[in-house]
Amino acid sequence: MTDIDILVSEVGPRDGLQSIDAILPTAVKNAWIKAQAAAGFREIEVGSFVPPSVLPQMADTADVVRAALELPGLDVAVLVPNLRGAQDAIESGAHKISIPFSVSETHSLKNVRRNHEQMFAEVSKISELVAQQPQPPHFEAGLSTAFGCTIEGPVSEDLVVASAERLMQCGVAEVGLSDTTGYANPAQVTRLVRKVQAAVGKENINGVHLHNTRGLGLANVLAAIEEGITTVDSSLGGIGGCPFAPGASGNIVTEDLVFMLEAMGLRTGIDIDKLLAVRNILSTALPDEPLYGFIPDAGVPKGFQEQ
Amino acid sequence: MTDIDILVSEVGPRDGLQSIDAILPTAVKNAWIKAQAAAGFREIEVGSFVPPSVLPQMADTADVVRAALELPGLDVAVLVPNLRGAQDAIESGAHKISIPFSVSETHSLKNVRRNHEQMFAEVSKISELVAQQPQPPHFEAGLSTAFGCTIEGPVSEDLVVASAERLMQCGVAEVGLSDTTGYANPAQVTRLVRKVQAAVGKENINGVHLHNTRGLGLANVLAAIEEGITTVDSSLGGIGGCPFAPGASGNIVTEDLVFMLEAMGLRTGIDIDKLLAVRNILSTALPDEPLYGFIPDAGVPKGFQEQ
Repeated sequence: MTDIDILVSEVGPRDGLQSIDAILPTAVKNAWIKAQAAAGFREIEVGSFVPPSVLPQMADTADVVRAALELPGLDVAVLVPNLRGAQDAIESGAHKISIPFSVSETHSLKNVRRNHEQMFAEVSKISELVAQQPQPPHFEAGLSTAFGCTIEGPVSEDLVVASAERLMQCGVAEVGLSDTTGYANPAQVTRLVRKVQAAVGKENINGVHLHNTRGLGLANVLAAIEEGITTVDSSLGGIGGCPFAPGASGNIVTEDLVFMLEAMGLRTGIDIDKLLAVRNILSTALPDEPLYGFIPDAGVPKGFQEQ
Repeated sequence: MTDIDILVSEVGPRDGLQSIDAILPTAVKNAWIKAQAAAGFREIEVGSFVPPSVLPQMADTADVVRAALELPGLDVAVLVPNLRGAQDAIESGAHKISIPFSVSETHSLKNVRRNHEQMFAEVSKISELVAQQPQPPHFEAGLSTAFGCTIEGPVSEDLVVASAERLMQCGVAEVGLSDTTGYANPAQVTRLVRKVQAAVGKENINGVHLHNTRGLGLANVLAAIEEGITTVDSSLGGIGGCPFAPGASGNIVTEDLVFMLEAMGLRTGIDIDKLLAVRNILSTALPDEPLYGFIPDAGVPKGFQEQ
C-alpha cells in the first residue's frame, strides 16, 4: 500500500447482494467486479461460502472467485461462516478469507447457530487448515456487533477486546471491527479502535466495517482513520446490510466514501468517474433496488481533483 | 453553556423555509419554534429581515421574533443581508443578528448585489448601530462559501482568513464558517477552523454552518467540534439550503446531529423524543415537502440513553 493511503474494500457483491432477494446472474457479478477493479479497487469481497439453501444469492461464489482471480492487482476476498465454508474458500483460491465473530453471543447463536466457545474452536480449526496451505490465504476475523446488538443492546467493550485477543490466539492474521447494527458513534469508534489496538497490536487491526443505518457512517469512518485504520469496507450504492439483524440496513456508500477520502487528500487509487459508471451495471440488472449516495446526485465540487 | 457541551442552533425556520415555495403561516412557525424550544433548544434562527419581494416566506419575521421572545431560555436569532435588515432586527428585539459575508465575491454579488468592500462598509455601519443600543444584540458574520463556490470553484483559504480578520475589525462580535455549497470535507474543516482561530482568536469563532449536500455533513461536524467549535447549525428534517447556490441543497438534519452528539457523550440539552415529535408539525403543514433524516426511520439504538 505504498501508493495509496486508504484501502477501500468493496463488499457490495457479498454484503449487498446477500440482502437482496433477486439473484444476480454470475455474468453480471463478474462484469461488476471487473468494472470496479478497472476503476482502481484493490480488494473486493466477491461472495461468501454459505450453504445455497441459506443464501442462494451466493451459490456461484466459487465461479465468481475464479473470474475475479484473473483480474490483475485485485485481492479477492470472501466471507465464510465456518470450517466448511473455509474449505471451499481455500479450494477456490481466494486471497482473503474473513469470518464474522459476533461479540453478542445472542446474535452469534441467531446468525451462525454457535456460541462463543464453539466459534473459537471453529476459528482455530480454520487457522490450522490455512497454515497447512502451500500458499496460505490471509485469514481474518471481523468482530461483528462490536458497537451494539439489536437484540442485546449495548455490548461490553471489555468483551470486544477479550474476543479480539482470543481470536488472535486462535490463529487469525488480523481482526477487524464491524458495526453490524449501525449503532456506532464516532467517540465509540475512537475508543474501541484504541482499546483493540492496545490489546492486539496496531498492526493486527487494520480494517473497519461500518454501517450508515443512523447516518453516522462517514463520521465513524473519519474517527477510525484518525486512529490509523487503513482499510474501510463499503458497498456500491450503499446496498446491503445484515439480513439477520432486524432493523439494520444501509452500508456506507462507496461513492461517497471515496469522495470524502480523496477530497481530504487521502489517496485511494480510485477513479471516481469510472466508479460512478459502475452503478449502471447494478441499476440495469436490479432495476427495483434503490441505489443510495449523495455524490451520484450532487456530483463532485467544481474544481475538484483526485489525489 | 455550563450545562451543555454543544449548542445545536436550529435554522430550519429561516434557512429551511426560505428555500420552500410554500409560505408557512405565522401560527405554524410559532408552534414549531415553541415545540422545539420545549424540546430543549437554546437558540433558534427564526427568520430573516429581507424584503418581502425577495423572500415572501420571511415577511412575518418581526411577528415570529415577538412570539419567540416570550419563550424562556431561548436565544432568538435572525439573519440580515444589510443595514436595513439590521435596523428591523434591532427593532424586533432579536437577541442575535447574523450577516452572511460571501468569501466568493462572485457569489456575494449574485446573492446580495454587493462586492467585498461594500459588504465591509455595511458591516461596519451595522456594528455602529448595534453598539448604540442600550441592550446591544449579539452581532456576528458568517463566512459563506468559505469551503468553495459553485460559481468560482475553490475559494482561497487565505481570503477566508483575511475576510475573518477584516470582519472582526468591522466590529462583529464573532465570525462563523459556512459551507454554503456543501463542498467541505473534514480535512478542510480542520484546517480552516484552525487558521481562522489562529487569526481572530479561538473565542471569536464558535460556530459552523455546514451542509450535507455530498453526505459529509456529520463527518464535517465531527472535524469541527474536534477543533473546539461549540455551536453547530442544523435544520429540522434537513430542509433547506441556499436557494442562490445552484445545485446546493440539504442542510444537516437536526435529529441526526443531536443523536450523534448525545451518543458521543456530548450534552446538547435536547430531548430526542420531543424533537422527533416536532416533525409532525412540519409534515402536517408542508405535506409535499420531503423531510430527511436517518434517526426518524431507524430509531435510536436499543439501550440508548441521552446524556
